[in-house]
Amino acid sequence: MGGDNAPEEVVAGAVAAVREHGARLVLVGQAPRIRQQLDLHGVAGEIPIVHADEALGMGEGALASWRKPRSSVAIACHLIRQGRASALVSAGGTAGVVATSRLRLKGQQGVMRPAIAVALPTRPRPTVLLDAGATSDVRPETLVQFAALGTAYAEITTGLQRPRVGLLNIGSEPGKGDKVTRKAYELLSSGQPGIEFVGNVEGDQLLSGVADVIVTDGFTGNVALKTMEGAVRMAFGELRASLSSARTARLGAALQRRQLRELRDRLDSETYGGGVLLGLNGTVVIAHGAAGARGITSACVLAQRLAAGAIVDRIRDHVAATRTSRFRRQHGEKEQPDPGQP
Amino acid sequence: MGGDNAPEEVVAGAVAAVREHGARLVLVGQAPRIRQQLDLHGVAGEIPIVHADEALGMGEGALASWRKPRSSVAIACHLIRQGRASALVSAGGTAGVVATSRLRLKGQQGVMRPAIAVALPTRPRPTVLLDAGATSDVRPETLVQFAALGTAYAEITTGLQRPRVGLLNIGSEPGKGDKVTRKAYELLSSGQPGIEFVGNVEGDQLLSGVADVIVTDGFTGNVALKTMEGAVRMAFGELRASLSSARTARLGAALQRRQLRELRDRLDSETYGGGVLLGLNGTVVIAHGAAGARGITSACVLAQRLAAGAIVDRIRDHVAATRTSRFRRQHGEKEQPDPGQP
Repeated sequence: MGGDNAPEEVVAGAVAAVREHGARLVLVGQAPRIRQQLDLHGVAGEIPIVHADEALGMGEGALASWRKPRSSVAIACHLIRQGRASALVSAGGTAGVVATSRLRLKGQQGVMRPAIAVALPTRPRPTVLLDAGATSDVRPETLVQFAALGTAYAEITTGLQRPRVGLLNIGSEPGKGDKVTRKAYELLSSGQPGIEFVGNVEGDQLLSGVADVIVTDGFTGNVALKTMEGAVRMAFGELRASLSSARTARLGAALQRRQLRELRDRLDSETYGGGVLLGLNGTVVIAHGAAGARGITSACVLAQRLAAGAIVDRIRDHVAATRTSRFRRQHGEKEQPDPGQP
Repeated sequence: MGGDNAPEEVVAGAVAAVREHGARLVLVGQAPRIRQQLDLHGVAGEIPIVHADEALGMGEGALASWRKPRSSVAIACHLIRQGRASALVSAGGTAGVVATSRLRLKGQQGVMRPAIAVALPTRPRPTVLLDAGATSDVRPETLVQFAALGTAYAEITTGLQRPRVGLLNIGSEPGKGDKVTRKAYELLSSGQPGIEFVGNVEGDQLLSGVADVIVTDGFTGNVALKTMEGAVRMAFGELRASLSSARTARLGAALQRRQLRELRDRLDSETYGGGVLLGLNGTVVIAHGAAGARGITSACVLAQRLAAGAIVDRIRDHVAATRTSRFRRQHGEKEQPDPGQP
């Protein structure tokens, strides 16, 4: 029920995910409206529906998670907790979806804070940037855990054995950055089992493919992601203006219209799937609010893939291997005693 | 002596600033090499030279400011302290120039931390983003002061009476962001004399012109700026690849080559002047290390303009007007007693 185009485009995208990718889905929301849409696609009865009275509004933030215990997102979380679903997909507003899922699914054991992972359109394979906005205030240990979350995500989505992890920073050398980032660099470069740390990555390298996973706090990550979107949009806007301004150029523009559209599609945020909220007891894929059927289909396929890869278990193992021991002590988890110790 | 193209391009740019813009300059560096360049331009003897034995290397950071007390940047700072210059321009590495100027010029009274202001290529006039990397760890009061610094800078460079100030954040509503940004929003929206606060600005609005000044910490600002540069570079790279890949498109590409180059020049970081270090007892314009003569000329013209606008005095007045009183108390400055008080 979330997003600008629900339920029409959402149902259309879900139907395509079932038909073309063999996804197994449950649709959660206002049953009569969803059934009507399924009828239009001629698949009524083939895709199960779970009714939910309410839906989160696009502008609703954290409070909605308490006010609307029977929103479609809350019900979908309930299905995950019951073991009837492995992941959920929503095109609802990020703040409401994140707050509801955190409340209903809870953080998975050992994970300090959740993070939103986003796949940047680099070549030959996407680069995972996290956190894109779930956790603004972090500690150095949180960033180490984000490296573990991102490694698990990249392993499943790219098939890489040891994805390279970079730390978003304002210089390439050690000692650069703010206090939290400097300390995170120390922790990561001192060697974290299972994490292939390759050092600092600067803003202009986000799209260069120098790392498979790039770690930062949710404030910086969100600003960087939106800055990237705005800059690409501006570059294409300027290009359009430039192409139509010169008479000789207009011919060329006509010839290139198709190439330009394809290119913009690839770079446009709506086409590279949604963000994925990691670190909870269940995977939450947040599609773009303006996503059309195609965007919803890719979000469903991504959710299916992450569930098939057992992302929650993989995160648990990766996080357990990291040396974020201060956190372990503070949260009452005992360190493994050294068996050689008397 | 700084930058990739010193002294050739630096001297050429300085000569153009004198000839075409009536700038009054002193060249600081290795006198024989500078004199040789001036000879080539036929202006030997017309532009004064102050000799400096040493120069900061491009990779040198904060330590260089102590190790090289007679670097060209250190000598230029000395000229400012003596009142023989009003501002300095360098194409040297940012870390070394910032560290040397902070050590030699010292922070101006009442200013907690310096900030680097950069002009983003928005229309119809540039948007000032600060801090682009001088101060990574900030307090809310520091961001209020950055708003004062940016206001002073925008008033002089754009001629606006009340430039609109935005706070870089991860949502438009109050209450968004990390702890420091949330508190800074409170301070700014409670009304700061002389600052026209217009609210939060998101990453994708940096180039939209919704504010004349955008304030953030040096970590986020540096990441955002470099992300923007990387995204624009990538968009044009993709465009080039796309244009040459399709046979029908190749003709168009030939027709548009000039338009594309002009557009890229406008967006390219080297052409929109350098960053300006604000908040010290003297203005420091940091040109891009790869700047050619044209970049150096615009940096000199910018320095001249800021000095003519008495930027240091204007910053002092703007900062004094802000309500960053906790800072005043902590630094032993007495609040003005209320004359109506018994």
